Amino acid sequence: MTADPVSASPVNAVTSPDFAAITADLMNRIDQLCLLTEVPGSVQRTFLSTTAARMHAALNAWATELGLDAWVDAAGNWHAVLPGSNPDAPTFIIGSHLDTVPDGGKYDGLLGVVLGLALAGQLKRSPAARPYRLEVLGFSEEEGVRFGVPFIGSLSALGQAGPLLDVRDSQGRSVRQAMRDFGLDDMHIGDATLSGPHLGFLEVHIEQGPVLEAAGQPLGLVSALVGHHRLKLTFTGRANHAGTTPMHLRGDALMAAAEWMLQAERLAQDTPGLVATVGQIQAFPGASNVIPGRVELTLDLRHADDQLRAARLAELEALLQQVSARRGVRAQAEVLTVIPAVPLDAGFQAGLKRAAEHLDLVPPTLVSGAGHDAMILARAMPAAMLFVRTPGGLSHHPGEAAASEDVRAALEVVWRFLLGLGAVVDSEARP
Amino acid sequence: MTADPVSASPVNAVTSPDFAAITADLMNRIDQLCLLTEVPGSVQRTFLSTTAARMHAALNAWATELGLDAWVDAAGNWHAVLPGSNPDAPTFIIGSHLDTVPDGGKYDGLLGVVLGLALAGQLKRSPAARPYRLEVLGFSEEEGVRFGVPFIGSLSALGQAGPLLDVRDSQGRSVRQAMRDFGLDDMHIGDATLSGPHLGFLEVHIEQGPVLEAAGQPLGLVSALVGHHRLKLTFTGRANHAGTTPMHLRGDALMAAAEWMLQAERLAQDTPGLVATVGQIQAFPGASNVIPGRVELTLDLRHADDQLRAARLAELEALLQQVSARRGVRAQAEVLTVIPAVPLDAGFQAGLKRAAEHLDLVPPTLVSGAGHDAMILARAMPAAMLFVRTPGGLSHHPGEAAASEDVRAALEVVWRFLLGLGAVVDSEARP
Repeated sequence: MTADPVSASPVNAVTSPDFAAITADLMNRIDQLCLLTEVPGSVQRTFLSTTAARMHAALNAWATELGLDAWVDAAGNWHAVLPGSNPDAPTFIIGSHLDTVPDGGKYDGLLGVVLGLALAGQLKRSPAARPYRLEVLGFSEEEGVRFGVPFIGSLSALGQAGPLLDVRDSQGRSVRQAMRDFGLDDMHIGDATLSGPHLGFLEVHIEQGPVLEAAGQPLGLVSALVGHHRLKLTFTGRANHAGTTPMHLRGDALMAAAEWMLQAERLAQDTPGLVATVGQIQAFPGASNVIPGRVELTLDLRHADDQLRAARLAELEALLQQVSARRGVRAQAEVLTVIPAVPLDAGFQAGLKRAAEHLDLVPPTLVSGAGHDAMILARAMPAAMLFVRTPGGLSHHPGEAAASEDVRAALEVVWRFLLGLGAVVDSEARP
Repeated sequence: MTADPVSASPVNAVTSPDFAAITADLMNRIDQLCLLTEVPGSVQRTFLSTTAARMHAALNAWATELGLDAWVDAAGNWHAVLPGSNPDAPTFIIGSHLDTVPDGGKYDGLLGVVLGLALAGQLKRSPAARPYRLEVLGFSEEEGVRFGVPFIGSLSALGQAGPLLDVRDSQGRSVRQAMRDFGLDDMHIGDATLSGPHLGFLEVHIEQGPVLEAAGQPLGLVSALVGHHRLKLTFTGRANHAGTTPMHLRGDALMAAAEWMLQAERLAQDTPGLVATVGQIQAFPGASNVIPGRVELTLDLRHADDQLRAARLAELEALLQQVSARRGVRAQAEVLTVIPAVPLDAGFQAGLKRAAEHLDLVPPTLVSGAGHDAMILARAMPAAMLFVRTPGGLSHHPGEAAASEDVRAALEVVWRFLLGLGAVVDSEARP
């Protein structure tokens, strides 16, 4: 945990930037940058594509305007840097990812990178001392679209992407080959590893969910990224003729599945913070006149408390056995993946909160239900996330949006946070 | 309705055949005939295939052994006939279908044809007068496998298959072309129309369900063939991220579908004779980490009382609207097909019942949940069905079976029924 940076903030000593102008410029730049796409009329930037290279070039040009050095590292991550007041100053990183899903939105990932860049530009013009080096980072890969594995960019930044280099895309090209195609040297991917000391990492990201909108709040603090169980369930009953088999002689796998799904829903509704989702379901043999003899479905279960999640999963498994025994079918639950929860840094959360309070905002504290680069960076340094309200909770979709007032609030809060962070470093010489 | 034939039966005046030997021969012949298949090791006889032609040849040979005339009509239906004692005698038809589903069983359809043929052979050797012409009929098509439409054989027998002649199979060949390939003249399909007068039709068929087995009975009388509603239901909610959308802000189409499916199950369980089946279900977009925004499923609803079925369907539609309104999703039910129930002849049922009682059997009365050729023939003449117990209710499956004791019971009951039918015709001159 870090100390609370904002409580020691000398913010009033610094002239406040023109946030209206910065916000308008930022929103406009996002619109322009999103014209760089693989599919005209749609937002699509795939890892190591020529579109990714054009995005790097556009960001380089903007960094140059701002007087910042910028480069692309051995893993295709984009960097811009504002040096600290002395060369040994620790680094604070602000960033997110630059890749998108197919037919994605304009703000997922990109917002966190350009917001960092805009603030680095402002900070460069500020007379305040910068007792830390500020690095803006645009991770090359987070969505897992091209190679089916996410976080290749942030894992590379920690020197942990090595095992992924031989994964292949649908065209049969490996990450390694894709890097060479892009002009990178896969043998030197280790050069992408960040070198310390690091003060921490901040990711500003759209919420991609409906909670802030429902709460009427532009911004949210993230206390943790949820842990995650993903399961495959199989219900095995008796396939039979839909006309000749009376109700009391059936072993209907789908009805057993339906009953259990509703129990899972109820358990999640009764457990604050728990979400349970059945996203895929298939009935076999799958004919309208045949009672399903087998049903396969997925369960996605998330909660920020790993122990609680495991306990609820055990309850769901017990209910599964009860329902299936009562209905004379068999049921089996196979855990496919378990991802532990990642708590974020409490000191940074407190600092962001105080920064927000200066704007008369009381940002609620959320748990992130989705994975983010901050989850990876938290392995190596204190990490924080700030969520921006997402209209309708809509994301991974062309209709994905962010209101310019909300983006302005994020800019102001992070600006104040960064100034406060300087004061903290000064006073505490935090490594 | 017909009069009760068996009450007037002179059965004791006729020497009883050796049913043990007839049954053993019949079971053996079924095994041999099922070696005629399109897929070695599996039972498969498709409409108008070369296997169908080989089946016709084998049945012709057996009919000749029995001293009966046999032929294939313009629709590929196979016939054998035992003339009546006088040339104007009305015809009684006994039969079922000769085609099968892919990888089907040995008894579905074929049993009813060969049982009729065996009894015609016995009747020919019997000294009793035959005041009716007995026709054994093996319908060419009932399963709907090749052309997606069932009952082409029995509809042809009523002169009602004309509209189906231009339907095409998956290879693009029409019924008409398939008939020509088989050596039939599609322009003369009208020649397949049965000409009267007809006393009636009897179909002996395996139950294809578990009711007789559960009741411990070898045979069952069929009072009616159920009516049938087939629907497609669509639930439309809001697709959303499985991690970022709290339970109370979801519009989960699959959970709404699950709740309604259980209501449908309960309503069917509470309504004697009603069966409700959801055989197909699909969730969209169908990713494990996305809340289903749309679900499509089928409902198959059957009951022998058309009015009652319609009333229950209306209840299910009201429940659908309640569930979806409460959950904030939309639901839509589209009726794809409605097939009215077909009551069978009460006099024939009574006659079969008395014939069974002579064997100390008390066959339960069932409603057929599946469609059968008798359903079509009932449009033109009094029709009856006798069900034979199906171990495990298993049908349309290589494990489909019939116990030889049960087949023997069916032979004995129908034998006695046919003798009684003769007495009835004699005494009543029924047209």
